[in-house]
Amino acid sequence: MGSGYNMHALEKILATHAGKKEVSPGEIINCKVDLAAVNDLYLQVIKSFQEMGGQKVKDPEKVAFIFDHYAPAPTIKAALNQKIMREFVREQKIKYLFDVDAGICHQILPESGLVWPGMLLIMTDSHTTTHGAFGAFGTGVGATDLAVALLTGELWFRVPEIIRINVDGYLQPGVMAKDVILHIIGTLKQDAAIYKAIEFTGSTVKELSIDGRMVLTNMSVEMGAKTSYIQPDNKTLAYLKSRVKKPFKVYTTDPGYKYAEEFLFEVEKLEPQVAVPHTVDNVVSVSEVEGVEVDQVFIGSCTGGRLEDIEIAARILKNKKINKNTRLIVGPASKNVLLEAINAGYIDILLKAGATIIPPGCGPCLGAHQGVLAPGEVGVTTSSRNFPGRMGSREAKIYITSPATAAATALEGKIADPRKYIKE
Amino acid sequence: MGSGYNMHALEKILATHAGKKEVSPGEIINCKVDLAAVNDLYLQVIKSFQEMGGQKVKDPEKVAFIFDHYAPAPTIKAALNQKIMREFVREQKIKYLFDVDAGICHQILPESGLVWPGMLLIMTDSHTTTHGAFGAFGTGVGATDLAVALLTGELWFRVPEIIRINVDGYLQPGVMAKDVILHIIGTLKQDAAIYKAIEFTGSTVKELSIDGRMVLTNMSVEMGAKTSYIQPDNKTLAYLKSRVKKPFKVYTTDPGYKYAEEFLFEVEKLEPQVAVPHTVDNVVSVSEVEGVEVDQVFIGSCTGGRLEDIEIAARILKNKKINKNTRLIVGPASKNVLLEAINAGYIDILLKAGATIIPPGCGPCLGAHQGVLAPGEVGVTTSSRNFPGRMGSREAKIYITSPATAAATALEGKIADPRKYIKE
Repeated sequence: MGSGYNMHALEKILATHAGKKEVSPGEIINCKVDLAAVNDLYLQVIKSFQEMGGQKVKDPEKVAFIFDHYAPAPTIKAALNQKIMREFVREQKIKYLFDVDAGICHQILPESGLVWPGMLLIMTDSHTTTHGAFGAFGTGVGATDLAVALLTGELWFRVPEIIRINVDGYLQPGVMAKDVILHIIGTLKQDAAIYKAIEFTGSTVKELSIDGRMVLTNMSVEMGAKTSYIQPDNKTLAYLKSRVKKPFKVYTTDPGYKYAEEFLFEVEKLEPQVAVPHTVDNVVSVSEVEGVEVDQVFIGSCTGGRLEDIEIAARILKNKKINKNTRLIVGPASKNVLLEAINAGYIDILLKAGATIIPPGCGPCLGAHQGVLAPGEVGVTTSSRNFPGRMGSREAKIYITSPATAAATALEGKIADPRKYIKE
Repeated sequence: MGSGYNMHALEKILATHAGKKEVSPGEIINCKVDLAAVNDLYLQVIKSFQEMGGQKVKDPEKVAFIFDHYAPAPTIKAALNQKIMREFVREQKIKYLFDVDAGICHQILPESGLVWPGMLLIMTDSHTTTHGAFGAFGTGVGATDLAVALLTGELWFRVPEIIRINVDGYLQPGVMAKDVILHIIGTLKQDAAIYKAIEFTGSTVKELSIDGRMVLTNMSVEMGAKTSYIQPDNKTLAYLKSRVKKPFKVYTTDPGYKYAEEFLFEVEKLEPQVAVPHTVDNVVSVSEVEGVEVDQVFIGSCTGGRLEDIEIAARILKNKKINKNTRLIVGPASKNVLLEAINAGYIDILLKAGATIIPPGCGPCLGAHQGVLAPGEVGVTTSSRNFPGRMGSREAKIYITSPATAAATALEGKIADPRKYIKE
């Protein structure tokens, strides 16, 4: 590797954090971590920290604890885990605690200005790839790795190969980012990017809102991606402007950078997509499953509970009632999303349509609480996974759709094409 | 017993439902039931119905199923119980199903016009005494009794002795119905009314809102009361007017009726009251426990989650933040209460103050989900019971207060007198 190597923005981020000029795929490096975040599933982080002899967190200003999977606590065990975490946060003077009122890590971190282009963040959650939507290197890690970062402020990484996915064309009304990413996953399959990074480019990505872009980067991990990336543009900078309080550098990829693989998806004619039981890459067009009766619809999670998701659901359900044989659970991704949705009138519409609004958090996505599926039930969800047992009983069936398809489904009581309700 | 017997309104209600002219205390009678309601704790009702050979519910127009304790389902078991109940409701053509979006039985039944003066209702919930606030005979029953009512439309009752509790005087600002009933329970103790009825009269009761009156009748059961009663007045009739679609008769007590016992409580100088661990009748004035540090505050339940409860919490917390070491869970008693609270701006205030708004339901009251206490934690609650383990861990401590005291406590992080925040 010499100075002639054309680097990707992600490689530049890693190199900077490793104190190196260059890095290249396959290299093992040690990086400084800008933010290490722990959610309430991972009490083991504190245990591992203590087992390694940890006395003091290296840099408590760069650590966050977030209670989102079990918010508020549904069991004594969850309550106790959170209590121990709160005590750890106080003892260690950890700067950020997002308690049971705040929302989902992948929404509240960007909202709170804790995600910026060029940063490196790790979190005990696989969907940390989400933060590539802001030009950050974000990745999920296990308890031991996170504990190492608490102890040392650093962590090792293998520099990933990078895949470029170019998405082109205007989406039809009622077709959303979720449909795009489901189509991509269904085409490339779940092992397409194991320990690789995925960069999304193209006209479709440019057109997508920040909310929509986060859906792409979020679900990259469903193809095994180590991280994901979208080059920051004016839309990104506008989002960050009022939130991020520190200077940051936007890295760019050198012209001539050679991707490990490149794919082109033309989505102008893309229909709403559905991941059918029991894998995320088992994807069909909505027309193939229209009419399947549904017991519960969940609109929420780190990939389906943002403001534009709730907005489109409200557009579809305004002055209507959901089917009497179907229940609708709506989980705003954060308190801010909930407040905005209240003040825009969406929550009023959804409640009157028959929805149950759960507190900001991600309980139903993993069958933890707040709307668990019974044996034999069929669920439609805007969340990210449909493995057997993911949302409750192993004998339930889970279909993943966009929020628009989910809302149309709640209305009709069976899987439905939202395009008939969204004309522009 | 002759025609000279002066009857109480409650006796007239029972007599009418038994097809008799007169009844008197101690008599065992068989009564037609106007409404039999089952909540999601009581799958056993369906099992008992089937064990008795039940094929068809006698009068499905007089039956309601209500999912409020586990709404929405936090476990596969709860989800399965609700599924079986939904199927039973469909098969039996039961008229009323309040699914996981609706709220707490003791709020949604009156709201829906299913409670009226002179009716007899039974429900698988001890707090069914609540409905005496509307001049109904309401009482909680077990699964077997409820199943008998499904089968036959009738149930046996022992005519209760009746205690009169006269409450007199204007309450100070910041002192609420909850303080009154806690004071009464603290004075008379938990076995004061076992299998008796309690009628509330007096100037204080007249002044109370419907929400406040329901707190008195609700918590009568904490003294063992079979039922409770407040004579309907213009305030009651105004509440019922837009809701109850059928004619009803308001029964009145004959002059000269002889109560089993009579008590007078003068409450003009009553301070905010607190039931301290571990019984509901262990009641002290707030000044005796001010400063006790609190981990979680719950404002909600069938005796603390109505509009006036949320309103006073919002008044206290407007433009303020709760203490950082305390979390606040707010559970509106019903979807209507939530909608009204949203539209009045209270939910916005509470969210911004740091509250977690849970869906309408009563999960935290019984430690079922939505905010369970960990070992060693201290909880303040507006609900009705503080036995060890009631809200989670048996090693947690529970203090029962009014919503005003609860809100002041959330603000300060320790038990606080709300009168400093409520001046008029």
